[in-house]
Amino acid sequence: MFDDIVDNSKTRYGKPCWHRRSDVGLSAVFDGLLIDKSIHYLMNTKFDRDIIDAVLQNLFFLNAGQTLIDTLSKVDDFKNYNKASYEKMANLLDSCIIALPIRMGLIHAGITDLNAVDKMQTITSKMQVLYQMMNDYQDLFGDAEAVGKEESDIQESKCSWFAVKCLEMASSEQKELFKQNYGCEDREKVAKIKELYKTLQLKEEYKK
Amino acid sequence: MFDDIVDNSKTRYGKPCWHRRSDVGLSAVFDGLLIDKSIHYLMNTKFDRDIIDAVLQNLFFLNAGQTLIDTLSKVDDFKNYNKASYEKMANLLDSCIIALPIRMGLIHAGITDLNAVDKMQTITSKMQVLYQMMNDYQDLFGDAEAVGKEESDIQESKCSWFAVKCLEMASSEQKELFKQNYGCEDREKVAKIKELYKTLQLKEEYKK
Repeated sequence: MFDDIVDNSKTRYGKPCWHRRSDVGLSAVFDGLLIDKSIHYLMNTKFDRDIIDAVLQNLFFLNAGQTLIDTLSKVDDFKNYNKASYEKMANLLDSCIIALPIRMGLIHAGITDLNAVDKMQTITSKMQVLYQMMNDYQDLFGDAEAVGKEESDIQESKCSWFAVKCLEMASSEQKELFKQNYGCEDREKVAKIKELYKTLQLKEEYKK
Repeated sequence: MFDDIVDNSKTRYGKPCWHRRSDVGLSAVFDGLLIDKSIHYLMNTKFDRDIIDAVLQNLFFLNAGQTLIDTLSKVDDFKNYNKASYEKMANLLDSCIIALPIRMGLIHAGITDLNAVDKMQTITSKMQVLYQMMNDYQDLFGDAEAVGKEESDIQESKCSWFAVKCLEMASSEQKELFKQNYGCEDREKVAKIKELYKTLQLKEEYKK
């Protein structure tokens, strides 16, 4: 919900985003906070402290990831669109979905050994990058109806796997083309970026 | 911060609101969440559980109050601009500032008797309404520089003490005037509302 507000996205799960309703608008921020605070309150009454710790840590990571991807998308020089940033971002954004449930399982099983947690994280961090890559692939090539939201990564200048790979493989001429056209709602510009991705065979690169 | 985003306020503590900075905008939502999540995380590592419970409950009240005042300000008929709504709203909005610190004191002193908490709340709820009234007075008559933000309650159609009192005392003609002019940035309309407040001697009414 917060993501959609900041990006001013159009659809989520096939329906207009909450803040797009004429009777909601920016009040969606308060609605999001109400849900957030209810979860915190319930969690505190029902869960063990170490579980709450894990959840809070991962929620903080998620917010840090959102800030990172948002900050990156606002800088025009694309200097930091590289593998290291991408992996950092993916691990922050997706730890709630991948690492957190496993971490909670470990806690419930009484496994608090830091070595075990470390080992778990070397595996989940790879899964998190893969999950983020799949997310980016869906945005570009997925069926908008099945994904439930319209493609927006190119338009919103997101540090996607395709943008990173493109800049990695592109000639200096192609890089210039990328910089001139990435991050814009203009259909022609979006088409140019897609053409560039095609030329560089990024879809095939992704499938490796 | 979230308040300022939803209301699109201009200044806070004498400086432009965070979201008004050209390099921030709606990303202020993420920044607010980062602060929020850091507080939750720190709180969980350092505070006792019953203290956290009290904080979470009052933060939830605060969000509910923000939603209430925001929802009220969006309905044009002013049907619910009455003493009961106002007191409800004030108690939700200001319990974090008035009741919560005292509640935390009680917890630290080992006083968990519900009667004591009840008694405390009958007193603090009056203080909370008074605090909200003072807040509304400052918005209208305070020195904008000292208050640190420009007046905005009339413009943003807020359910302020003055709006409630005005509708309580106004003739049906004056009520019509209020409805025609409240909740608008237009300077002339704002002036008409202020004139109406003056006619009804609301400043004097407040001082009672």
